[in-house]
Amino acid sequence: MAGSEGIGIKRLHHIGIVVRDLEEAIGRYQARLGLSLSHVEELPGAGVRIAYFPLGGTRLELIQPLDPNSGVARFLSKRGEGMHHLAYAVEDLGRSLDLCRRQEMELIDQVPRPGGEGASVAFLHPRSTGGVLTELIEEKGL
Amino acid sequence: MAGSEGIGIKRLHHIGIVVRDLEEAIGRYQARLGLSLSHVEELPGAGVRIAYFPLGGTRLELIQPLDPNSGVARFLSKRGEGMHHLAYAVEDLGRSLDLCRRQEMELIDQVPRPGGEGASVAFLHPRSTGGVLTELIEEKGL
Repeated sequence: MAGSEGIGIKRLHHIGIVVRDLEEAIGRYQARLGLSLSHVEELPGAGVRIAYFPLGGTRLELIQPLDPNSGVARFLSKRGEGMHHLAYAVEDLGRSLDLCRRQEMELIDQVPRPGGEGASVAFLHPRSTGGVLTELIEEKGL
Repeated sequence: MAGSEGIGIKRLHHIGIVVRDLEEAIGRYQARLGLSLSHVEELPGAGVRIAYFPLGGTRLELIQPLDPNSGVARFLSKRGEGMHHLAYAVEDLGRSLDLCRRQEMELIDQVPRPGGEGASVAFLHPRSTGGVLTELIEEKGL
């Protein structure tokens, strides 16, 4: 587990993977990799549909863009299917964003916005994180 | 955790992230993200140096290419720093590769080869896994 320094990371929350066709990808992850689907959620605000595959203490999230103007749709047309971001769980997202600013990290979201399952999320620009698009997530009810 | 179907995945072993300068990247992951370095290992056969950051039940592996002809070096010059592969732990790598062949998945390594920390590893082509370069790993002593 992470220590108490840095920006307050508790654990690896999920790995976001962009897919073209969610049903086809779910079938592939079930049949080929033998992973178990937890559930599927649509986030109209973010323009995506997500399939959740728990895997030990973390999970894979397969993301299909619904809105052709979303960042995920642009990623898909530019780079094709593949790994999109890493998400870390934090205790207090507002505090973590303050700590990011203090370290002069570049924020995509200046303030938390709604994510899946009632969580609050914010993205950090890959320029600040060695090429890895990074999401911080404060889970609901923490 | 994964079920008993598919290709025998037990858990997410690690996330492989390609970096240009390992010392600089280690400093960034420690100071910015507050993660704790476990150790650094050089794998001359694979032409890489790796820094291990445990994170809950999985870990991040920061990989710097040493050999300019390695796949990791080609990835770095083509796509820049960023997420490179996902690695799943399996019980019996030979059996998992047989199961991959039965599902007509495209293997990069037809037979297991040495990985870090005495493990045996084999890579699956991203064409078979929805754009995600995938490593299967049988840990030493299992």
